[in-house]
Amino acid sequence: MILRRQGSAREPAARFDGRALATQLFDGLRVGCTPAGGVTRESYGPGEQAAMKLIEAAAATHGLATAWDAAANLVITLEGRYPSRPFVACGSHLDSVPDGGNFDGAAGVVAGLVCLARMRAEAIVPTRTIKLMALRGEESAWFGKSYVGSSALFGKLNEGDLALRRRGSGERLGEAMHAHGADVRRITRGEQLLDPKSVGAYLELHIEQGPVMVTQGLATAVVGSIRGNIRHNAVLCIGEAGHSGAVPRALRRDALLATADLIMRLDARWKSMLDDGHDLVVTAGKIGTDPDKHAITRIPEEVSFSIDIRSESTATLEAFYGAMRAECDVVSAERRVEFRFDRRIDTMPGHMDDGWIERLVTLSKELGLPSEILHSGAGHDAAVFANAGVPSAMIFIRNDHGSHNPKEAMEIDDFMKGTELLYHALGDTP
Amino acid sequence: MILRRQGSAREPAARFDGRALATQLFDGLRVGCTPAGGVTRESYGPGEQAAMKLIEAAAATHGLATAWDAAANLVITLEGRYPSRPFVACGSHLDSVPDGGNFDGAAGVVAGLVCLARMRAEAIVPTRTIKLMALRGEESAWFGKSYVGSSALFGKLNEGDLALRRRGSGERLGEAMHAHGADVRRITRGEQLLDPKSVGAYLELHIEQGPVMVTQGLATAVVGSIRGNIRHNAVLCIGEAGHSGAVPRALRRDALLATADLIMRLDARWKSMLDDGHDLVVTAGKIGTDPDKHAITRIPEEVSFSIDIRSESTATLEAFYGAMRAECDVVSAERRVEFRFDRRIDTMPGHMDDGWIERLVTLSKELGLPSEILHSGAGHDAAVFANAGVPSAMIFIRNDHGSHNPKEAMEIDDFMKGTELLYHALGDTP
Repeated sequence: MILRRQGSAREPAARFDGRALATQLFDGLRVGCTPAGGVTRESYGPGEQAAMKLIEAAAATHGLATAWDAAANLVITLEGRYPSRPFVACGSHLDSVPDGGNFDGAAGVVAGLVCLARMRAEAIVPTRTIKLMALRGEESAWFGKSYVGSSALFGKLNEGDLALRRRGSGERLGEAMHAHGADVRRITRGEQLLDPKSVGAYLELHIEQGPVMVTQGLATAVVGSIRGNIRHNAVLCIGEAGHSGAVPRALRRDALLATADLIMRLDARWKSMLDDGHDLVVTAGKIGTDPDKHAITRIPEEVSFSIDIRSESTATLEAFYGAMRAECDVVSAERRVEFRFDRRIDTMPGHMDDGWIERLVTLSKELGLPSEILHSGAGHDAAVFANAGVPSAMIFIRNDHGSHNPKEAMEIDDFMKGTELLYHALGDTP
Repeated sequence: MILRRQGSAREPAARFDGRALATQLFDGLRVGCTPAGGVTRESYGPGEQAAMKLIEAAAATHGLATAWDAAANLVITLEGRYPSRPFVACGSHLDSVPDGGNFDGAAGVVAGLVCLARMRAEAIVPTRTIKLMALRGEESAWFGKSYVGSSALFGKLNEGDLALRRRGSGERLGEAMHAHGADVRRITRGEQLLDPKSVGAYLELHIEQGPVMVTQGLATAVVGSIRGNIRHNAVLCIGEAGHSGAVPRALRRDALLATADLIMRLDARWKSMLDDGHDLVVTAGKIGTDPDKHAITRIPEEVSFSIDIRSESTATLEAFYGAMRAECDVVSAERRVEFRFDRRIDTMPGHMDDGWIERLVTLSKELGLPSEILHSGAGHDAAVFANAGVPSAMIFIRNDHGSHNPKEAMEIDDFMKGTELLYHALGDTP
């Protein structure tokens, strides 16, 4: 059912301009971007913190209560008619990849704030208390670990995670969280900082990070499930150095040839599993010889690379992972190199709540929006909430050029449509 | 003919200990190395300069005249019986790759100094004037250009070369040469700083940089030819960034998959040309995604890599180069990426002088040394002298673990054998 404003038609509440607020917030969040538009909001670091403070100040301006939870996420609350019922959460994350786009994550936080500010301005009291959660540390680009802010809430970080080091500075995750006010002692113990039973639902609006909605002409969509993944931040291929001119082919142990060989084998395996109908994407996003040692005239003795395997199916993830390790064994033997794997990091696929999917589809139809259900290739905090037992749902907004780059392009019209859908979903939760 | 000491047997000259001098010089050159033994002597930079100064001081201590030429190479002279005849040069380079070994280059300079100091100590006057040249900038690791010090002597550097930037600091080659006393104005004009006709021969002693002599049990060897090469310091593969989870395989333009594909194709072409009997080695020594942009969850839009193709045959070099460009076109079309090549850098194969090869083989037999002729996979300044028209020759010393790494292992016994060969070759030049 579509939410309607309280009060009589003769006494209009203060006119609320959600589009103006959204535009203002997106512009504010873009401050400090590169000339090409790239933003850098480090997880539990200065860029993310500045974004958090901007959202906190805007919430206060619009008369909303703000607080910080024990994982240092920002929580903005609007009390509902039945505050004893489990609250409805909405939100997304405020960090970004290095030189990323302005909308990945931030769109969900801005949308939540527009919804709450509008309810406040229009004097609408939602059925349940609504909490907008501006989460931290969703992007793995900084510490090699995704969903830090949401995982911490459900006791899902361990000591190994907290010991991970930040790219560049080498700062440990635990130190960075502590510096931003998180209760690292409780997090290390795996304490639940948020009781999943206290959360009636988690709704996340996010830009689509692939090209499907642009191709299909969909301004908004409802998400069905979220791919999980298996990752290694750094796999090291170790061969033997040598002079590029002086060692014959047969005597070489070239770590780059071996790595290229492995990558081509993984590409072939990937294609074959797709042909068999599996859901799968595979990416080696980072590769490099050691800049302190490499030379044009030196056979590379070490190549480091990352690997990210994603699927909606845990069985597919494990099957591909097994195939990868088997291919490593073949390449190791043939090319006389060694592959050393760092810690394997798993993220479970997240299945969105059937009741919520149906509710969002129905609301979309009432609002004249597309009612298609898409699956999310990218991971989201919603998967963490779903796996913690919170009924979760997602709204996707059309976005061109993908994400994790400065060319992200979300139209404000599409954003406002999705925000309208979120607004009605939040206010009307039974 | 083996060189014999002047004077009667009843009046022995001061006893000269060449092994002690060599050991002392190698120890001195190793100062400042890493715990693992890695030395870093930057071309036209501080490490190389320190080595130059050490050799200059040792030459002066042994009563030899020292000077600096217009390319800032160190020249140590011992006048011969017929100073009007073209002089005989010997030498090698004093720079190293980053974290390289102590002997690559330095062995030839130390050997020359031991020979000249011995002649001086034993009051031997060689037939011709001998000049030991401690050359600069042989390693391409610093500016992406090999043989800078020797090429400058023969007017073989151009403005493009002098504009090359040093790895790390970005300093231009021309600036670095000027800072070390080279006459960059003359070098830029392509002036010959050294008339090839004034040089009767160039003899270079060098460690072998491959495993052949260790395998075959040869302490010394005579070099027949030196491989030339074609290089690109940086080839850029340009695809398109995207979220690692959200873009289906068919829509990706993954620069790393494309680069791995290309590298595997080059490996196959290489193998096939070897099977056809061609002399060829191919190395991509450096590879990397952009550290400012790459992320585990980002499809790489750019991969940069180097390529070094070497052969004794110019025709083979060109055939492989053409094949590489053709494979780039295939991969570009299939994977929708673009390959951008920086300046192609050519180094011609160098053919050693037949008369000198024969002379060194004969002398080796007289001295009880191996008389095998080997070909050099690595490039050497001797190729520059040879291509300038100077009759050139090389003596190889057995060395384990290759070069361009801290594990270079040359035995002093082998070194002294090669130095003995050089000594007789130098002193007895007709």
